[in-house]
Amino acid sequence: VARALLGRFPDERLVYLGDTARLPYGTKGAETVVRYSQRAARFLEGHGVKLLVVACNTASAFALEALRDECRVPVLGAVEPGADEAVAATVRGRIGVIGTLGTVRSGSYPRAIAARAPGAKVTTLACPLFVPLVEEGWVGDGDEGDLAHHAARATAESYLGELRQREPELDVIVLGCTHYPLLRPLLERVAARLWRHPVTLVDSASAMARAAERELDALGLRSGPSTAPATSALDCYVTDEARFGELAPRFLGHPLDRVEKIDL
Amino acid sequence: VARALLGRFPDERLVYLGDTARLPYGTKGAETVVRYSQRAARFLEGHGVKLLVVACNTASAFALEALRDECRVPVLGAVEPGADEAVAATVRGRIGVIGTLGTVRSGSYPRAIAARAPGAKVTTLACPLFVPLVEEGWVGDGDEGDLAHHAARATAESYLGELRQREPELDVIVLGCTHYPLLRPLLERVAARLWRHPVTLVDSASAMARAAERELDALGLRSGPSTAPATSALDCYVTDEARFGELAPRFLGHPLDRVEKIDL
Repeated sequence: VARALLGRFPDERLVYLGDTARLPYGTKGAETVVRYSQRAARFLEGHGVKLLVVACNTASAFALEALRDECRVPVLGAVEPGADEAVAATVRGRIGVIGTLGTVRSGSYPRAIAARAPGAKVTTLACPLFVPLVEEGWVGDGDEGDLAHHAARATAESYLGELRQREPELDVIVLGCTHYPLLRPLLERVAARLWRHPVTLVDSASAMARAAERELDALGLRSGPSTAPATSALDCYVTDEARFGELAPRFLGHPLDRVEKIDL
Repeated sequence: VARALLGRFPDERLVYLGDTARLPYGTKGAETVVRYSQRAARFLEGHGVKLLVVACNTASAFALEALRDECRVPVLGAVEPGADEAVAATVRGRIGVIGTLGTVRSGSYPRAIAARAPGAKVTTLACPLFVPLVEEGWVGDGDEGDLAHHAARATAESYLGELRQREPELDVIVLGCTHYPLLRPLLERVAARLWRHPVTLVDSASAMARAAERELDALGLRSGPSTAPATSALDCYVTDEARFGELAPRFLGHPLDRVEKIDL
């Protein structure tokens, strides 16, 4: 999501907070996720942000209302932009959503899609192994003899096979977790074999960047080249550093200048 | 570990704390793991325990000294009992240790084994996908057509294949993480194919229960049937409930009476 935002807003400063000490949120319950999200939001408001983007789908699913109640700045989640794109993309009115256990249990995607397209049918499936596969760098793009590639492909075939069994008619799958876009080439290959008709994969990161642009424009808050901050475009804060330095460049596509460790 | 302790101590009361809100510890850095472990230890000391067992290998690897400095009761970790068993079991003096990223990075198993058998050669490998595989229930015991089984087997073949490449002569593998014993049948099958000679898998849970028995006996702290507490044998506390009710019986082998959610 940070990558999509940086690409779309060359004149904004991005204050990024990764709660790496307590990740993943996806396996945790609503109360825990709300509490941690509130602490993160307070930290970012304290750093003077004008728009708060909740990049984590699980935090969006559980904590968006609590954050909107509490924050003085507008709060943008992952679910609504993803639902917008999914509804725009479906022809058959059959939408699949894959995400963490938390996101799926929250029921937030089916609710958001029903509010936009009451006739659409939504099938959700939790895929808990996709996050650790991405963090391990096993994204299924190896050659046929590569066992890590086999494991990634077998995992994708197992999850998408179950989704196919539950909804043979779907034509859109929402990648409802920040990690899943890194599996996109693999998921596209597996989906193409499982469904005979075309299936569109919707990536909430680019949907969120477009929604952030609409929000900033509507509120007249967007920086131009003249009002752009002189400081670095990306301020990075994390609560644990152990793996961030290794993983962040994989998501961001380039190395990071500086990361500050904080306690939430 | 709780299961092994309950089996060995029918007359003791076990106070169990699972820091499920912040798990897994295995991907986090030393400072974070020490801080969280200290909070957990304070909670358990406040509940009047006479022996503190650090069941998590990552917490044992990073935080044991800090906990021993701070606690009034004896503290038993996972690494020393596991190292004892490994040294006793090896014939060739070549030992493999698999665990989380944190446990492997800490270097605690090689240090503990070197202290016991200076001539032994230790090869360590982090296997970050094993914990989520176990939590998903994909432990590789399905039939040949089962894709989840394929994924578990391909993952085990990839990790153990790398270990085999690094140390063809090892004859002991320490399962250096609380989750790994649930993969034991799969790991035994894969190891038997990869190594021509017998390979012993050492499970730190049973090693810890035996070490706990030695410790309590040495200190004269063991309860007999006459001094046994009248209350439930297992008091369970967790920091997040979302998955505990589903996962705990898989580890414990039977359902739980009561689980209390606390904030650490």
